[in-house]
Amino acid sequence: MTLAIFTNEEGARFQPAMIASGVMAGKIALEDAYNARDKDGIRLVDELERIGYLGAEPCVPRPFRAYLELHIEQGPLLEEEGLSVGVVDGIVAISWSRLTLHGVQDHAGPTPMRIRHDALVAAAEVITGARTIATELGGDLVTTVGNLVVHPNIVNAIPGRVTLSIDMRDPRDETLDVARRCLDAVVKAACEREGVRAELEHYWRVPYTPFAPDVVAAVERAAKAAGARYRHILSGAGHDAQYMAAIGPTGMIFVPSRGGRSHCEEEFTPMDDIEHGATALFLAVVDLAGG
Amino acid sequence: MTLAIFTNEEGARFQPAMIASGVMAGKIALEDAYNARDKDGIRLVDELERIGYLGAEPCVPRPFRAYLELHIEQGPLLEEEGLSVGVVDGIVAISWSRLTLHGVQDHAGPTPMRIRHDALVAAAEVITGARTIATELGGDLVTTVGNLVVHPNIVNAIPGRVTLSIDMRDPRDETLDVARRCLDAVVKAACEREGVRAELEHYWRVPYTPFAPDVVAAVERAAKAAGARYRHILSGAGHDAQYMAAIGPTGMIFVPSRGGRSHCEEEFTPMDDIEHGATALFLAVVDLAGG
Repeated sequence: MTLAIFTNEEGARFQPAMIASGVMAGKIALEDAYNARDKDGIRLVDELERIGYLGAEPCVPRPFRAYLELHIEQGPLLEEEGLSVGVVDGIVAISWSRLTLHGVQDHAGPTPMRIRHDALVAAAEVITGARTIATELGGDLVTTVGNLVVHPNIVNAIPGRVTLSIDMRDPRDETLDVARRCLDAVVKAACEREGVRAELEHYWRVPYTPFAPDVVAAVERAAKAAGARYRHILSGAGHDAQYMAAIGPTGMIFVPSRGGRSHCEEEFTPMDDIEHGATALFLAVVDLAGG
Repeated sequence: MTLAIFTNEEGARFQPAMIASGVMAGKIALEDAYNARDKDGIRLVDELERIGYLGAEPCVPRPFRAYLELHIEQGPLLEEEGLSVGVVDGIVAISWSRLTLHGVQDHAGPTPMRIRHDALVAAAEVITGARTIATELGGDLVTTVGNLVVHPNIVNAIPGRVTLSIDMRDPRDETLDVARRCLDAVVKAACEREGVRAELEHYWRVPYTPFAPDVVAAVERAAKAAGARYRHILSGAGHDAQYMAAIGPTGMIFVPSRGGRSHCEEEFTPMDDIEHGATALFLAVVDLAGG
């Protein structure tokens, strides 16, 4: 058994996230990972060396029987259903798009409504439309406009340009295909109504990552043996397990997140649930190791 | 006749705008004007001294027969109607509001749509609502969301907080009162639908500024005598004339703005119109001076 601690799963200081498992899986070039810079321009490789974490062992894939990862759910399902453990079947497909809307910047006072081409009014229609795509297609689809920047961004100027991000996720790749076509239509309609021009770029797409059936089955046996109340579940967020699944049999175990909250001071998992999760992890490892 | 050149009408480098006429009219304290700082922290008084523009004459109101200002329209009306001169009747009433929407920041992946409290989705409803207020109340009302900032503003996080500005203008103070009540209702509805909390602050209000009827009449006579095709018009933007109207008889003359554009490289007025405007200004001054 090997205990692996991957550098930088969250990507809070250095982008991209999951950088070390990405290198091990051959999805990120070692050189690119080393040269990732934080906001002060400091390189990851220099910081790893400075704190004594660089090491001499090459970061390459080695044959393994199974990769397992224990993580908080970051969603509300386990807590809502009073369960301790999630047996994770896979990681949802993710689509990231970037939209720039070009309107006409003008003075907010003497410009009558009828001649305006307001990039932010069009953006508002896209934000509302992205929400509607999720509620109308339903199921597990989630859509989020998380990043939005207005230009020139002053009180008395009609916004001439807005850039925004659209994050869409669903377990089914086909649903994401449909959602993307809906987004194209929403952007087109918003642009026509407001008389603005759009550049829409679908720049990143990760397909659904199914975990290895025998590893998932071992996790389920382990959850049962640990006496945990559990359910099958999908991960809505990326994890090191996503890259590791490309090079060997992989599975994950979730424990609850109170209120579904994560990456904030409210992040909390009760000790009982942590114990059930850790026991399930241990039993699954022993099981998969043939013990 | 006195030719006055007021420092900093536009407020591009030092805020607030119209700082010198504000001091002369007693609306801005001299000390506050002197201490206004640009983005590099340089004080207005130090820059005035450095370039030799500070002067010894105190900036106080003196009795005057009439104040006149020739300006570009910054709107499309004169150009659309093929006119050279606008006889300005007054400056519209202006209302500025600041809205902060507090949602729940969360991960864009594992957080189902049904438990979201997305501050940007609520903001989109307010942007659309502000537009609808203007189109439904109609008339000369204009509404603009020009400034909007998202927190934490990253692709994969549900926005936890959004701040935005609402600029509303109308010739009639009563219409602005109605528009503000409509805005309150729009914000309330958006918050209830998305389950977010709002802080809405109506922090600045300027009533309609009517110009002196005898000065407006003199401008009209002058436009006619100059052989200009003209119309009566309102100013949608603030000008030094707004402050000067508080301390003496005031009027303005507009010349056309191509495409209504201003404060950008496309700003343009044909030479013929400039000539008509300048002649009207000269004739109005002579008229008011009793010449």
